[in-house]
Amino acid sequence: MGEVVYSTVKLKPELRREIEELAEVYEAGELGGAADLSRITVLLCGPITGAELDAMNNLRFIQCVYAGVDSLPWSHIPADVTVASNVGSNADAVAEHAFALLLAAAKRITFFDQRVRSGNFEVVGESRMLHGRRICVLGLGAIGSRVAEIAKAFKMYVVGYGRSLRSGVTVDEFYPPDRISDALRGCDYAVIALPLTKHTRGLITYEKLCLMKREGILVNVGRAPIIVKEDLVRFLKENPSFIYANDVWWNIRSPSEDSDVYSLPNTLSTPWVAGAASSRETYEEMLRLAVENVVRYLRGERPLNIVRHEDYR
Amino acid sequence: MGEVVYSTVKLKPELRREIEELAEVYEAGELGGAADLSRITVLLCGPITGAELDAMNNLRFIQCVYAGVDSLPWSHIPADVTVASNVGSNADAVAEHAFALLLAAAKRITFFDQRVRSGNFEVVGESRMLHGRRICVLGLGAIGSRVAEIAKAFKMYVVGYGRSLRSGVTVDEFYPPDRISDALRGCDYAVIALPLTKHTRGLITYEKLCLMKREGILVNVGRAPIIVKEDLVRFLKENPSFIYANDVWWNIRSPSEDSDVYSLPNTLSTPWVAGAASSRETYEEMLRLAVENVVRYLRGERPLNIVRHEDYR
Repeated sequence: MGEVVYSTVKLKPELRREIEELAEVYEAGELGGAADLSRITVLLCGPITGAELDAMNNLRFIQCVYAGVDSLPWSHIPADVTVASNVGSNADAVAEHAFALLLAAAKRITFFDQRVRSGNFEVVGESRMLHGRRICVLGLGAIGSRVAEIAKAFKMYVVGYGRSLRSGVTVDEFYPPDRISDALRGCDYAVIALPLTKHTRGLITYEKLCLMKREGILVNVGRAPIIVKEDLVRFLKENPSFIYANDVWWNIRSPSEDSDVYSLPNTLSTPWVAGAASSRETYEEMLRLAVENVVRYLRGERPLNIVRHEDYR
Repeated sequence: MGEVVYSTVKLKPELRREIEELAEVYEAGELGGAADLSRITVLLCGPITGAELDAMNNLRFIQCVYAGVDSLPWSHIPADVTVASNVGSNADAVAEHAFALLLAAAKRITFFDQRVRSGNFEVVGESRMLHGRRICVLGLGAIGSRVAEIAKAFKMYVVGYGRSLRSGVTVDEFYPPDRISDALRGCDYAVIALPLTKHTRGLITYEKLCLMKREGILVNVGRAPIIVKEDLVRFLKENPSFIYANDVWWNIRSPSEDSDVYSLPNTLSTPWVAGAASSRETYEEMLRLAVENVVRYLRGERPLNIVRHEDYR
């Protein structure tokens, strides 16, 4: 019996054909009922429920469309199912967004643009330099590595924090996961580009934020729950010169629950758009790479980006 | 008779002492009347009037505090007075501001921030990538060279336009001053980092703008009159997807006269703050480098950044 691939997201005909050369392919809506779902061996996975996963009792491989796999219903995934993330597929887009947020905060673009539009050209306050500043890059995967590279082009002093440093990526200092305090201490800026795992959830507390400069900027393009929200709100209220520039949210389905953050004056916000959400080009590149990895699996090769179940349980 | 240095801007004591080791030094307010002014041989020059310059009839050397010398009252400067600009002193700050504007426009930071603040997390429209895009850097002096370097870190295709390419600066294509159309043709983005001279005034016309992609972004951190304003307004009205991201103005003393530009929806504006205006650190670095060049002159060395009178007359 051959492999049966089910994609919860729509595929372009040419991508579907690549899989069809190696397996039966169904897209969302083309399969239904427990009997059908039980034939699925490979899942190309956007949003999915635990109940749907439970019905796929012959599943061997899950390829996530998105870079982060934290939103998968992990308690419904048997330990012997191989799960691959799609890290790297949106790295350029997210790294660019991180610098868009960092620079907009440093140069006060939203503040000045609004004033100029009302005819007010008065120059008040201080903008901030990137050049020579100490930036901590939290997470040195595909996104963090790109952030570190670009930061070097801005002549920043780059402090890397993560499991390991990729070859070809240069940082000025490097700290492994157990040295988060040393990584953040004295930094002007920090960019969170970590995955959300049981190790990173709640990593950034009030005490950790206090290690940064009071005139600092924290950019989050990773996942919101890496920060303890109540701690962040307290810190931002106590330090009006510190800016939180943020693309990811704690309650994306009911964002008003995060108004305690986005209503603060010293925040800069985008609605989770750094990756594919506001760029068709990035989304198509993500799908292309996800299908490439499914093909790798179907050919009997080892897929890229296999994640460890224990990091998410 | 020794050299007499007059600074129209306030100097820190340590900078003043550096000059005092080699010459008499006066700051704004310490000299007055034609008799005194006629003793001045070296002018460290912020804002100045033609009448003041006329009274300085022993002037030999003008060191401008600012990078651009276009605002000097050139018709009052005798041809045998050496004039030095202060290019390079604010290059990092202005290059950073150029990317702040480019990225804020590409990622629609002001648009999304405003919506999120009102609780609206809906994702609409398309953001734009820098990666892989064709960017024209107009002017390859200190600022343009930094812009080109940073653009390469964003993996952009960099088209350089200017008199010459500095050693160590890499571009993918290079065009000399007479090939502006070839430089702009097909570009997604462009950054103006040119000085305002008789050669660059009015360089960017409607026809030149039409050579760029319709979904383009034009960043101006050089000088406003390099663009024919009426042409720009017409082009922006005809091409709502094209964004003009701008720090410099045609009428900075009565900005409302530029409301035809900043009131357009497809503009992003800051009030001429890229350099020293909103950064004490940058201003102090500019003064330090200006004094360094004055000291060079006083020691009988050739000052850096001597400009050609004929470019500004």
